[in-house]
Amino acid sequence: MTDSSISHGDRPDRPHVVILGAGFAGLAAMKVLGGKAVDVTVIDRTNHHLFQPLLYQVATAALNPADIAMPIRRIVRRSKNIRVLMGEVQSIDPERRVVRLDHGEIPYDFLIVATGAGHSYFGHDEWEKDAPGLKSIEDALEIRRRVLSAFEVAERESDPNRRQAALTFAIIGAGPTGVELAGTLSEVARKTLARDFRRIDPTQARILLLEGGPRVLAAYPEELSESARKQLEQLGVEVRLNSRVTHIDPEGVNIGDERIEARTVIWAAGVAASPLATGLGAPLDKAGRVKVEPDLTIPGHAEVFVVGDLMAKFQDGEMVPGVAPAAMQAGRYAAKSLLQQIAGKPRKPFHYVDKGLLATIGRASAVADLRGLTFSGLPAWLLWLFVHLFFLIGFRNRLLVMIQWAYSYLTYDRGARLITTTWHGLTQMRPETNGSESHRSS
Amino acid sequence: MTDSSISHGDRPDRPHVVILGAGFAGLAAMKVLGGKAVDVTVIDRTNHHLFQPLLYQVATAALNPADIAMPIRRIVRRSKNIRVLMGEVQSIDPERRVVRLDHGEIPYDFLIVATGAGHSYFGHDEWEKDAPGLKSIEDALEIRRRVLSAFEVAERESDPNRRQAALTFAIIGAGPTGVELAGTLSEVARKTLARDFRRIDPTQARILLLEGGPRVLAAYPEELSESARKQLEQLGVEVRLNSRVTHIDPEGVNIGDERIEARTVIWAAGVAASPLATGLGAPLDKAGRVKVEPDLTIPGHAEVFVVGDLMAKFQDGEMVPGVAPAAMQAGRYAAKSLLQQIAGKPRKPFHYVDKGLLATIGRASAVADLRGLTFSGLPAWLLWLFVHLFFLIGFRNRLLVMIQWAYSYLTYDRGARLITTTWHGLTQMRPETNGSESHRSS
Repeated sequence: MTDSSISHGDRPDRPHVVILGAGFAGLAAMKVLGGKAVDVTVIDRTNHHLFQPLLYQVATAALNPADIAMPIRRIVRRSKNIRVLMGEVQSIDPERRVVRLDHGEIPYDFLIVATGAGHSYFGHDEWEKDAPGLKSIEDALEIRRRVLSAFEVAERESDPNRRQAALTFAIIGAGPTGVELAGTLSEVARKTLARDFRRIDPTQARILLLEGGPRVLAAYPEELSESARKQLEQLGVEVRLNSRVTHIDPEGVNIGDERIEARTVIWAAGVAASPLATGLGAPLDKAGRVKVEPDLTIPGHAEVFVVGDLMAKFQDGEMVPGVAPAAMQAGRYAAKSLLQQIAGKPRKPFHYVDKGLLATIGRASAVADLRGLTFSGLPAWLLWLFVHLFFLIGFRNRLLVMIQWAYSYLTYDRGARLITTTWHGLTQMRPETNGSESHRSS
Repeated sequence: MTDSSISHGDRPDRPHVVILGAGFAGLAAMKVLGGKAVDVTVIDRTNHHLFQPLLYQVATAALNPADIAMPIRRIVRRSKNIRVLMGEVQSIDPERRVVRLDHGEIPYDFLIVATGAGHSYFGHDEWEKDAPGLKSIEDALEIRRRVLSAFEVAERESDPNRRQAALTFAIIGAGPTGVELAGTLSEVARKTLARDFRRIDPTQARILLLEGGPRVLAAYPEELSESARKQLEQLGVEVRLNSRVTHIDPEGVNIGDERIEARTVIWAAGVAASPLATGLGAPLDKAGRVKVEPDLTIPGHAEVFVVGDLMAKFQDGEMVPGVAPAAMQAGRYAAKSLLQQIAGKPRKPFHYVDKGLLATIGRASAVADLRGLTFSGLPAWLLWLFVHLFFLIGFRNRLLVMIQWAYSYLTYDRGARLITTTWHGLTQMRPETNGSESHRSS
């Protein structure tokens, strides 16, 4: 079958821009290119843009997946020059200027690679099944299932050691995601579930935050790391610094010689760039990110931009961080640059404007570093709330999230406490039965 | 391990009531027994009560799973005499008065079996993978994934026949669920998705409602069936009566000699009682339901009640229908009966009070039969809306559902248009690639 319509649309005279990935960087590029004199094809493996900073709230049953995800098609509905394809990119051929999908190729005049990053298990991929990370909706639902199931298993369990293991949660890595998860899980156990069980006392759950380095939130100023650690401990989290995990299995984790029995382990430690980066022929850094030129393109290919978490860009001796604002700035820059080039204007180099760092820890707990102005606790948390609501896409989502947050804040309840599994059809799903149980006296 | 605490709680002198299943019948029984002088154990294979009448709205991306599901523990949080166990019941032994779980047994003094019904493929279980039914959250998410993916596949597809097959949806069975699904899917294609694609025109989607019998909604008076058929056709559904499906495969369905290429097939035709019924030693009807005594118990075991969709109960020569109001009445009756017996009072027979039938078809379309008073269209739909919002559990759910319905009604948009799959970890999910595609001219 031959079909070129997808590649250049109805206007073969217009340059064709292909955007890979509809995260923060890809979406920012789309918004610039909508309605402009270019044809755009966006390819993503999912059908939705995901507001990743709130993903931990799906994992901890506070929000629904649809509250933080929006169909890409819906976002660009009015931009008739943008097509969206749900598909998996196999590879990129910069020499022939084509992107290879499962079944076919798409040629481009400009390419914006924004496929982001996944988890890295530092060479221990076998750990993943026992310690899922948090990058996608599927990840979040899997973590939610494991967390809520752990309390169910504990309630059925009659052996005290196994029961305590079911009530022990280990979060590996004390970056922003690990800190958010630990703080929130502690709240779930101590507040949300406190009165819902009869045999177990959920407030006895242990939440361990295991960090290989000497402090939490290593990217933040030292006094904020210390403040975050204190706020975590006030929320009931056991923070273990300089604790490098050496082994993970379904029953727990090892830190050197120490063994911790923990039925639920969550990975928030390592990030690895999308494997698509390797095929570009550009130099990569240790995490697999693409070392880009000052204009975010790859050497020898001024038509190929790499943006977002996939790019390795230094500015003033420091790496541009893998955060949403940086991704949005890079995406917007790439789109504007190629429009300038089409218009025959010269490109300016990319300049990242650092607006600060903001991390939440739990209810009324957060830390903020606004270019030297640091603060923590309630003021930082209110700022976090405002910023995240403001940037959450779509009026409707914003309203629903606001209602659910207000409800949760007032009642400590969480609206999405569902244990769901995969569709198996007539082979009905079964609850997890790792724990032994015996309900009858003998 | 021995452990009798689960069976009789802290008060071994109190009778122990075990309720299997937390659907409408089980929940109604729980509410009667909460706070009474009995110990209650509720066992369900999921952690939530599901408001099944709105499940089709999850399948069609209007509502989130958590909007229509509530953790069972949360519902009975304040009833300290009720324990909830998430678990799979293997069998029931009425002689020894025990329920067998995966790992252990639970003895009972009274048993309320309310495990409901699943799909029946009339001896063709192999059809299920190509034609899922709609009973659980997992079913609904699977149907949502298939429906939304079909449009994505069509957009990628360059072969016109395959594209049309991707845009053809066959719903088998024109009972209430089939009618709701067909009407709503038509609205999704014609309104929600209308402007979101570039190559395909979603309004060209074919929605087929295939019914083996001579009319839709066979349980309703004939003029309402006719009204429902007309309302469906106004919404763009092709209603095919007297069309018995003889074969289903991944590419479509056969009706006798006729072949219909349809990538998405949904089963709404047959219902089979929970297999637990077979172990009771009581007589069953053809659909596997338990033929109960006038007091909803099984012959020879006045302590075992069978309620909800699992019971076969005749009243005035007609079967009590498998609808939520009947299940709630039966659950309440069983709970009250056993309390009366404990109090030494005689039991009265169960009497079903028929409050009427109500089925929705789509936007402003419905039919109602209130004990002879029949009406359809907007008035029936408003009644449907009111009744369903009223009975939806929990203030919070009600509020969120109301907002989402108002939003959908005004904008034709749907808030939960997510394609999600199973958690696979590093083995990243892939979009479906049944259709061939080729994007490059050659």
